[in-house]
Amino acid sequence: MDKFMQLAIDEAKKGRSEGGIPIGSVLVKDGKVIATGHNKRVQENNPILHGEMDCLNNAGRIGSYRNTMIYSTLMPCYMCAGTIVQFKIPKVIVGESKTFSGAREFMESHGVEVVDLNLPECIEMMEDFIQKKPELWDEDIMEL
Amino acid sequence: MDKFMQLAIDEAKKGRSEGGIPIGSVLVKDGKVIATGHNKRVQENNPILHGEMDCLNNAGRIGSYRNTMIYSTLMPCYMCAGTIVQFKIPKVIVGESKTFSGAREFMESHGVEVVDLNLPECIEMMEDFIQKKPELWDEDIMEL
Repeated sequence: MDKFMQLAIDEAKKGRSEGGIPIGSVLVKDGKVIATGHNKRVQENNPILHGEMDCLNNAGRIGSYRNTMIYSTLMPCYMCAGTIVQFKIPKVIVGESKTFSGAREFMESHGVEVVDLNLPECIEMMEDFIQKKPELWDEDIMEL
Repeated sequence: MDKFMQLAIDEAKKGRSEGGIPIGSVLVKDGKVIATGHNKRVQENNPILHGEMDCLNNAGRIGSYRNTMIYSTLMPCYMCAGTIVQFKIPKVIVGESKTFSGAREFMESHGVEVVDLNLPECIEMMEDFIQKKPELWDEDIMEL
């Protein structure tokens, strides 16, 4: 397992243990972890804190993102994808996109490299969550 | 002046008085103000808190956004535009797009109605800010 993806999965599990949505993210710059984060919709009553956004929030103001990669256990939605495009993060590595196809084409159309690891562990974590809390999941991806 | 845009301008001025980037936003649902916000990159050392994001953060979890409109003193960037698309906010009213053209076409391609009021007051506020703090502006739109 990619060590950064393992960290993202650890973050997702932390979110799950808090009663939240199990999606985690890690920002890597020049090969080093700059920040980690996880979805905090439930924990902070905050609709913008998807895993990737929480991670970028936690990183603070780091200047250019040109030497960064962002990891996420799940394919980014349009909010997170738009942020990746705006911040000019060149590479995204995701755990899976089976449970949510997200905005891959949008990112790629803006020159972002997207790698989908298609990990059974990530798929099972989301499938279990979606089965147990379908209303919360629908709210998080705004299928309302 | 549209009363909601006036509120957004007031928020932008509040941000300016705090030493921040003068961009404000208002979320309206069923004709009523749900939340206001302004860019807090400087104030909270936070790259994701553009005006629109701070406003949506302040609104909290409100369920569906289908009956909402979001006001911003400036055309949304890809982060904020991606959020508007993901949240299915159907209408965006902006103060201007002269100083930053943003992601109007992206939003429109996803069915979002975008109205640009092209207000001299908003243009002057941004032109003055960009002239005084060009490095901060470049950082905020990631021209790094």
